[in-house]
Amino acid sequence: VSQVTIVGLGLIGGSIAKGLAARNLKGLEIHGYDRDFAIARNAEKLGVIATGHRDLQSAVANASLVVIATPVTGIAEVLDEIAPHVRAEAIVTDTGSSKGEVHRWAARALPESISFIGGHPMAGREEQGFANSSPTLFEGAAWCICPTPSADEQSINTVLGMIALLGGNPIFIDPDEHDQYVAAISHIPLLLATSLFNMCRRSIAWEDMSLLAASGFKDATRLASGDALMARDIFLTNPEGVSHWIDRIIEELRGAKELLGKSPEEIFNYFAEAKVERDIFIQTAPTRRAQRVIEDMPSGREEVMRMFMGTWMMEKAKELPQQMRSKPQDEDLREKLGLNREGVEKKG
Amino acid sequence: VSQVTIVGLGLIGGSIAKGLAARNLKGLEIHGYDRDFAIARNAEKLGVIATGHRDLQSAVANASLVVIATPVTGIAEVLDEIAPHVRAEAIVTDTGSSKGEVHRWAARALPESISFIGGHPMAGREEQGFANSSPTLFEGAAWCICPTPSADEQSINTVLGMIALLGGNPIFIDPDEHDQYVAAISHIPLLLATSLFNMCRRSIAWEDMSLLAASGFKDATRLASGDALMARDIFLTNPEGVSHWIDRIIEELRGAKELLGKSPEEIFNYFAEAKVERDIFIQTAPTRRAQRVIEDMPSGREEVMRMFMGTWMMEKAKELPQQMRSKPQDEDLREKLGLNREGVEKKG
Repeated sequence: VSQVTIVGLGLIGGSIAKGLAARNLKGLEIHGYDRDFAIARNAEKLGVIATGHRDLQSAVANASLVVIATPVTGIAEVLDEIAPHVRAEAIVTDTGSSKGEVHRWAARALPESISFIGGHPMAGREEQGFANSSPTLFEGAAWCICPTPSADEQSINTVLGMIALLGGNPIFIDPDEHDQYVAAISHIPLLLATSLFNMCRRSIAWEDMSLLAASGFKDATRLASGDALMARDIFLTNPEGVSHWIDRIIEELRGAKELLGKSPEEIFNYFAEAKVERDIFIQTAPTRRAQRVIEDMPSGREEVMRMFMGTWMMEKAKELPQQMRSKPQDEDLREKLGLNREGVEKKG
Repeated sequence: VSQVTIVGLGLIGGSIAKGLAARNLKGLEIHGYDRDFAIARNAEKLGVIATGHRDLQSAVANASLVVIATPVTGIAEVLDEIAPHVRAEAIVTDTGSSKGEVHRWAARALPESISFIGGHPMAGREEQGFANSSPTLFEGAAWCICPTPSADEQSINTVLGMIALLGGNPIFIDPDEHDQYVAAISHIPLLLATSLFNMCRRSIAWEDMSLLAASGFKDATRLASGDALMARDIFLTNPEGVSHWIDRIIEELRGAKELLGKSPEEIFNYFAEAKVERDIFIQTAPTRRAQRVIEDMPSGREEVMRMFMGTWMMEKAKELPQQMRSKPQDEDLREKLGLNREGVEKKG
């Protein structure tokens, strides 16, 4: 019997638990811990987890795989607390939205025998908490994984197996590179929504201005109504990424302001080019991904199955959706990141 | 018989035509003109308009009300072209997204006898054109109206009547004030979406970064896939508004960057305050409007009916939804704008 322990049963942790539970895999026991024991007990009652633990130490003591799904600033503490209690050969992963800082915490807290493989599923929704979690939250979603250089193939495949079971698309990425990318595509949008709302709200004309605010303004500021703790944690754990891209977006806005003195043609081209490029992105991105997945499938599926949870997984894999694979998305990216996974690649 | 002529049968013009046609009002003839005659002919075939005109001059020659719903930079030309042909007592309105410039064009082009009442419905959708127009596009939407100081009560009520028939909420506003407000709540969001997309797209890391881009990024850049001509026109006709608010949003972003060195509490408060304020805005704004409408109804309904289209309107009004009224939304706003509509207010 293999035990997976999920620490933190909020939207993400709850969705992982529900997604794995929905597979109904024999030989896999899902355990859970939440700071609020009532949530763990409720998840147990609902049959989402086999056991809800009252304390973190007992929750992880027998786990083969520990998934830390707490708010990102809570991860350091969890790592410190579990380090003396996890099994020597355990695998630890997380779902935090910053990865560089988390990897530094893990290196400091965990014994060398333990494989830490940082993770970040690119999925979520506005409503937080276990009540809003869903077994299908990760279907089709990118899931960043950042193995430490010392992580062995088996451990990486274990995490890949979990992601595959949840329907996610794994993307291998360096932790610091991850932080720069998500700052641009995820943290800056949050900041723009908040800044836009604050700018208008703090204007002396807000009372009148707000009467004109249509669905466009509401959409554009939607992210400002998100979880303030999560936003705070992004700022605390990814300051370099956020700082860099604030400078870049200010540059873009300055460039846009200079447009105001340009010819109608130049102004039109500015917006038309963005429109064309975005339309291409929206239309081609999913296709590109799907194509790669299919190319990777024959070897990928075999690879993923060589994991500690046993050969029953090999059978189960035949029921899995197409998106499972173990290869990084991009040869260049893998090389660029200097991650050595030659063994994984060549066995297929 | 009263004739309304709609110039430009795109998303907005088409929706106005369909909305009025859906009322099936006897005594009202809807005429249409589009640069592309095939569109006007098609609208006529569909029964949306009574007559589709081949030339602009004949389209407006007998109109009591002319609605210019072309792209905003086309309005100057339309005004010049119709000025010698509209009836002396005609009312002219428009739907352009900038109002200061349009009012200056109208003052230059139109004879003094003609009442120009600028308008801007705060409604739209991504898909443009007559094919995407809808009779319900304006239901519940704010509709800015900017009467010239010389516009008489009857003319204002005519435009209010049209807005009421379409289900819109009229908001009286000064043209330059309008331009500042919509720059903040509508033009800057468009620019932020475009700048965010360009920032990422132009990054050397885009190839890898785009793999992580989830629905959040797609939502945040959605407006960048809008109509580039409309975006250009905003820049051309509202440069002061756009310029002012670019400076303001850059200030906000600089402030947010300074947060990075602050305490966890300060960072949390920044996001939590925005969240609370936005939640209040989202929850209370519609209520506040509905309440005012009901207060205004008894006099408002009577007022709106005193329009040139005849007393049949008085009867039709009884079928109209609650949102009809003729009073400005806000006493202070009206005073602030220095618009004298005492007569309108006191007759009810």
